[in-house]
Amino acid sequence: MKKFTLSTLFIAGTFVAASPVWAFQPLPLHPYVPQDNPMSPAKVELGKQLFFDARLSSNGTVSCNSCHDVNGSGTDNRAVSVGVGAQTGGRSAPTVWNSAFLTAQFWDGRAATLEDQAKGPILNPIEMAMPNEQAVIERLSSIPGYKTQFKQVFGGEDSLSYNNVAKAIAAYERTLITPNSPFDRYLNGNKTALSKAALRGMKEVQAVGCTTCHNGVNFAGPALTMGVGFYQKFPTFSDSGYVKKYKLEDDLGRSAVTQNKDDQHMFRVPTWRNIALTAPYLHNGSAKTLDEAVRVMGKTQLNKDLSGQQVNDIVAFLNSLTGDFPKQSMPRLPATPNIGLINE
Amino acid sequence: MKKFTLSTLFIAGTFVAASPVWAFQPLPLHPYVPQDNPMSPAKVELGKQLFFDARLSSNGTVSCNSCHDVNGSGTDNRAVSVGVGAQTGGRSAPTVWNSAFLTAQFWDGRAATLEDQAKGPILNPIEMAMPNEQAVIERLSSIPGYKTQFKQVFGGEDSLSYNNVAKAIAAYERTLITPNSPFDRYLNGNKTALSKAALRGMKEVQAVGCTTCHNGVNFAGPALTMGVGFYQKFPTFSDSGYVKKYKLEDDLGRSAVTQNKDDQHMFRVPTWRNIALTAPYLHNGSAKTLDEAVRVMGKTQLNKDLSGQQVNDIVAFLNSLTGDFPKQSMPRLPATPNIGLINE
Repeated sequence: MKKFTLSTLFIAGTFVAASPVWAFQPLPLHPYVPQDNPMSPAKVELGKQLFFDARLSSNGTVSCNSCHDVNGSGTDNRAVSVGVGAQTGGRSAPTVWNSAFLTAQFWDGRAATLEDQAKGPILNPIEMAMPNEQAVIERLSSIPGYKTQFKQVFGGEDSLSYNNVAKAIAAYERTLITPNSPFDRYLNGNKTALSKAALRGMKEVQAVGCTTCHNGVNFAGPALTMGVGFYQKFPTFSDSGYVKKYKLEDDLGRSAVTQNKDDQHMFRVPTWRNIALTAPYLHNGSAKTLDEAVRVMGKTQLNKDLSGQQVNDIVAFLNSLTGDFPKQSMPRLPATPNIGLINE
Repeated sequence: MKKFTLSTLFIAGTFVAASPVWAFQPLPLHPYVPQDNPMSPAKVELGKQLFFDARLSSNGTVSCNSCHDVNGSGTDNRAVSVGVGAQTGGRSAPTVWNSAFLTAQFWDGRAATLEDQAKGPILNPIEMAMPNEQAVIERLSSIPGYKTQFKQVFGGEDSLSYNNVAKAIAAYERTLITPNSPFDRYLNGNKTALSKAALRGMKEVQAVGCTTCHNGVNFAGPALTMGVGFYQKFPTFSDSGYVKKYKLEDDLGRSAVTQNKDDQHMFRVPTWRNIALTAPYLHNGSAKTLDEAVRVMGKTQLNKDLSGQQVNDIVAFLNSLTGDFPKQSMPRLPATPNIGLINE
């Protein structure tokens, strides 16, 4: 996977400052769909079933939805998620809503696509804890309804593969788009869609410098090629008191993936879309409120002590980024008639 | 709560044997609704949100749906469920589907109604582990969307009460009905709805004696007054090899609730509806397959070694009891804008 780091950022930054229009774009209704994983209603439905199916975890208790609750914010609203056996990791679950617009996945960008991302947690020993891909396929193969659907959706005898599990989940995730936020309606011409505070906040995030990184349709960076992540060092100003208070330097970020010292404390820039709903905040979930997250970011990234008014206005703007959540039908998970799959 | 035990059972048993029609009734489309908790679309929708909301557990990881998955069988298809902190209990989660037709809830019948039942797991320290009712109300009161809905549904300033939480959940659960199984279609006049094996099994369950207890609309006993549970001793024939193999006498059953020695090993008779989907079986989930559960029940309850043919036919009949699951829309869980509720 390629990367887009600090050096390139400064060039982009100049451009941003000169052209706020570039920073602000409404959320498209449809995301990029890779050629090798075209969407279909049957594939999306299969992916939805898999997304909700706790049998994708070793002991049948954790599904994708457990930590990325699509009935809510697409997160679990916890600082860090809880996997099989009550294990916890060090990072907060990013929202699955609009993740299709990110050009790299995970906080450290270690997955280039939603397909790559979907493969991770299932096998992560502290998350869903399946021992290996083969075990996943064996388990799903024991569920007649999945065998049938994989064959119908992907065709052929080997249709129930780990790659296709990931493809189906990714296809479902590409439907998780929340358009029509007050901000989007404003951009689309409804000049009364934003409150005065939100309008002030919209100017403030540009003036202060937030949109140097938080730009593009998802406020997570520019429209790079899929797989090219948009990273930033966090914290940038490590002498802020917040760094110690919230243990912001405990996590080495992307360098743990690349083994490159230049990537230390580099993180993929997270989305602002629906951020009102996804507390707590920061990669480790250490900021309990959005106000505090805004203060932390102002200080650690821009070396600015934001005033109460600035924080309030910025939060008002961020609150205008909550979109419409599409109505969804519940999936019906295929059964294993007369026999249980989880034996522990 | 009253009880309906072995002594009364024998009277009913005679009646059953004389009248198979009494034993077999199609599933009604609507359950009994208590006068003090009338149904309304808004109440059902609120109950659905609560049912899916993991914030009803101490650490925000376990919802009602975690163990009673309505996307599937209404159970978690595990021997015993997993609560907060990966704790496990000793009993298998009964299905929530058609639970509205039961006249008492829990394996030991300790709740008279769905309302009473809903109050239990939220406060159970090994399940959802909220410390007390007040903590539940405080948490839900921090969620503006709930405050509004409770007021709309129940009226008044004190509308957000633990009683009303239970009422809303129960109202939702009363919509979880699965009519129109092959067996129901057969009873309603479609004589080709059952396979030959299922028809043989239908006779077999009467001839062998299963329907002495497994009768009524839910195959969980007769239509008693709500709150009057229908209990049976399990195991009845304790010299069966299955008793040791599956540790069937480890659980004292209803006597742990009543402190009455006569209630030792007494359990509420569970439903047969959708039993094909709810493996593993028995109160402790020790029987991995339905075939084995049928063999165990034949031996421990009727002292009969069922033949392979008998088991196959009975399983075929039980498989005809899988109904139609209603299409449901996903709930949208109300948010706590800009702040997280779970602080641990």
